[in-house]
Amino acid sequence: MPSGLITLLTDFGLNDAYVGIMKGVILRINPDIRVVDLTHAVPPQQVLAGALMLRNAVGFFPDGTIHLAVVDPGVGSARRPLLIETDRGFLVGPDNGVLSPAAALMGRPRARLLANEKFFLHPVSQTFHGRDIFAPVAAHLACGVTPEAVGPVLDSIVELELPVPRRSGATIAGEVVHVDHFGNLVTNISLDALPRFPAQQVYVSISRTRIGTLLATYSAAPEGGPLALVGSWGTVEIAVRNGSAAKMFAAGTGTPVTVVVESRDP
Amino acid sequence: MPSGLITLLTDFGLNDAYVGIMKGVILRINPDIRVVDLTHAVPPQQVLAGALMLRNAVGFFPDGTIHLAVVDPGVGSARRPLLIETDRGFLVGPDNGVLSPAAALMGRPRARLLANEKFFLHPVSQTFHGRDIFAPVAAHLACGVTPEAVGPVLDSIVELELPVPRRSGATIAGEVVHVDHFGNLVTNISLDALPRFPAQQVYVSISRTRIGTLLATYSAAPEGGPLALVGSWGTVEIAVRNGSAAKMFAAGTGTPVTVVVESRDP
Amino acid sequence: MPSGLITLLTDFGLNDAYVGIMKGVILRINPDIRVVDLTHAVPPQQVLAGALMLRNAVGFFPDGTIHLAVVDPGVGSARRPLLIETDRGFLVGPDNGVLSPAAALMGRPRARLLANEKFFLHPVSQTFHGRDIFAPVAAHLACGVTPEAVGPVLDSIVELELPVPRRSGATIAGEVVHVDHFGNLVTNISLDALPRFPAQQVYVSISRTRIGTLLATYSAAPEGGPLALVGSWGTVEIAVRNGSAAKMFAAGTGTPVTVVVESRDP
Repeated sequence: MPSGLITLLTDFGLNDAYVGIMKGVILRINPDIRVVDLTHAVPPQQVLAGALMLRNAVGFFPDGTIHLAVVDPGVGSARRPLLIETDRGFLVGPDNGVLSPAAALMGRPRARLLANEKFFLHPVSQTFHGRDIFAPVAAHLACGVTPEAVGPVLDSIVELELPVPRRSGATIAGEVVHVDHFGNLVTNISLDALPRFPAQQVYVSISRTRIGTLLATYSAAPEGGPLALVGSWGTVEIAVRNGSAAKMFAAGTGTPVTVVVESRDP
Repeated sequence: MPSGLITLLTDFGLNDAYVGIMKGVILRINPDIRVVDLTHAVPPQQVLAGALMLRNAVGFFPDGTIHLAVVDPGVGSARRPLLIETDRGFLVGPDNGVLSPAAALMGRPRARLLANEKFFLHPVSQTFHGRDIFAPVAAHLACGVTPEAVGPVLDSIVELELPVPRRSGATIAGEVVHVDHFGNLVTNISLDALPRFPAQQVYVSISRTRIGTLLATYSAAPEGGPLALVGSWGTVEIAVRNGSAAKMFAAGTGTPVTVVVESRDP
Repeated sequence: MPSGLITLLTDFGLNDAYVGIMKGVILRINPDIRVVDLTHAVPPQQVLAGALMLRNAVGFFPDGTIHLAVVDPGVGSARRPLLIETDRGFLVGPDNGVLSPAAALMGRPRARLLANEKFFLHPVSQTFHGRDIFAPVAAHLACGVTPEAVGPVLDSIVELELPVPRRSGATIAGEVVHVDHFGNLVTNISLDALPRFPAQQVYVSISRTRIGTLLATYSAAPEGGPLALVGSWGTVEIAVRNGSAAKMFAAGTGTPVTVVVESRDP
């Protein structure tokens, strides 16, 4: 059951009224719908970056939330507009992979094509489906329109190829997948990928610099010093206490990060 | 009838709490009012830029929405504070033209002076009428205060001189009126200004560069290549597929754009 | 009584989904809670800057509002998580001083330790207490959980040392405490600190440049010229009409500003 809550994630920025216009379209359909911004600062057309931020956020929302994601370089082309039902809620957006990692996390994804033009805003432009297709369909869903009504089931959708850490013996080779506002370097190396050794024996390196073992908190490092910890994304993160790891290591998305599990000397 | 929905458009940015404070003032009057941000990134004191973004957005909101726009270089001076009633909703802001293009679009504008200080937040500062006059008046309107109660009818208001495309034979000479987050160049040349020829015969040029005919979608251009289309503003727009037209053409607001309708060779 | 309204002030920026995630946590506890952003652009880890913006904003919100502020360089360390009850509303955040100036302004602050883990989001991370402690506790308070239930009273909390203007005869020496989006320089010199002389006899200087007497409005200065006035923060502010005082005077937080009260020649 939709919860009456819609989240928005786009690469539209906040310098235009595009996001506000999508909210207008939603509220014109039902003024009681709640709308929450995830972020609108996905780098333009960076589908993977948007997909990862979306996957990281959906778990914190109520069941039944409708997550609307528009990172859509193919707008107006043959790429399909999607609804994905899951055990935890709904996803609406283009079939380019931006929804698929979140959908997998949310459980048992079932995709549908947005085919019923009754729920679109007309005339439908070929440049702004966030306004003309995704926002109005999400709003109608939030009002109780059934998934069946929006369009037929799809057998498969575009799946994004996510950067996966490679493991070789005691070494895990991953990479930075997100640089946050503080310059923290979020990697794709999750705790689950680590064998169950004490944290003190896990050494993290970036570029050729060995950062050290995993600490528990930012403030366990000296002021201005680098550290590695398991961050709020649930993965290994490299930070600088009260500073920017992105600057210190001249690092960004794709920079290799290595985790080595060392057996402790007796 | 006001809808209980207020939109905000300002040049305040989001680095201060100014916008949040306006929302506090509104919610103190009635916590059930819904507030939607259009944008707060109007370039400082650029009344025309704000007026165009506002006009582009109002049509997507429910009837009865109260649009509050504060781009107000004359705050504290003799410029008057306004309410404009229209067939589609309400506009509140300074009498410097920021409201007038949206008002004309919304139908049958009737302006009133905000004169009844009962609806102001006291003491009224001379630097922040968004907080002290416009937000509280909008909130009172959203609660059912009648337009008559806020002040007397005005015979005329400041009208903005909008950049209008000039037509000469088969050539329309317009200009860029907005550069969006993607670097798309939005012009003032609307489809209505074009004679009803096939799109293939309409050629668009910017600063001596001929872009080509109007395409239907961004993705119809080659990766990294420029294109012209009718964008989400409903006017001719110059874009670069997965890139920035503003950068490619070193263009900005005011850059001339020309559309030529050519008869096709038989 | 809590009003069902929560404000958010952080140094998280808007480029990540961190703020959206906090809203998800709140709305999962109660989807009817209203959330208003004050700002998320506090410079990273600048507790004083956040504290001053918070203090400047709280007075404009309804009684009972819960103000959540997360500028938290010590997250995960021994610094305590707080609730402060006041006569006007509630404050939730880390015990590092970010709440204390607002608390003093809101009247009769009584602090409590957030000790009852029943109201936390589990597992509690050591890097994002905004999500795991502060947001859920604020949401439970907004739903009617009593302050007594969240934890025991504290005898004292961390108080921030605020920059206070020094007075020497007819001269008041203060400083810039905030640079706003327009480049206006907000000082810590309040009207109350000024003797009750006519405004014309109060001269304001910044870095050896004498600006002149206090004007009433921005527009009383010539275009592009500097001026001093009492701004929307209620303190002396140095501005440039339709320009940036921060740029003109190469000034920022901490730049000295002097006010001299001169007796008028007869």
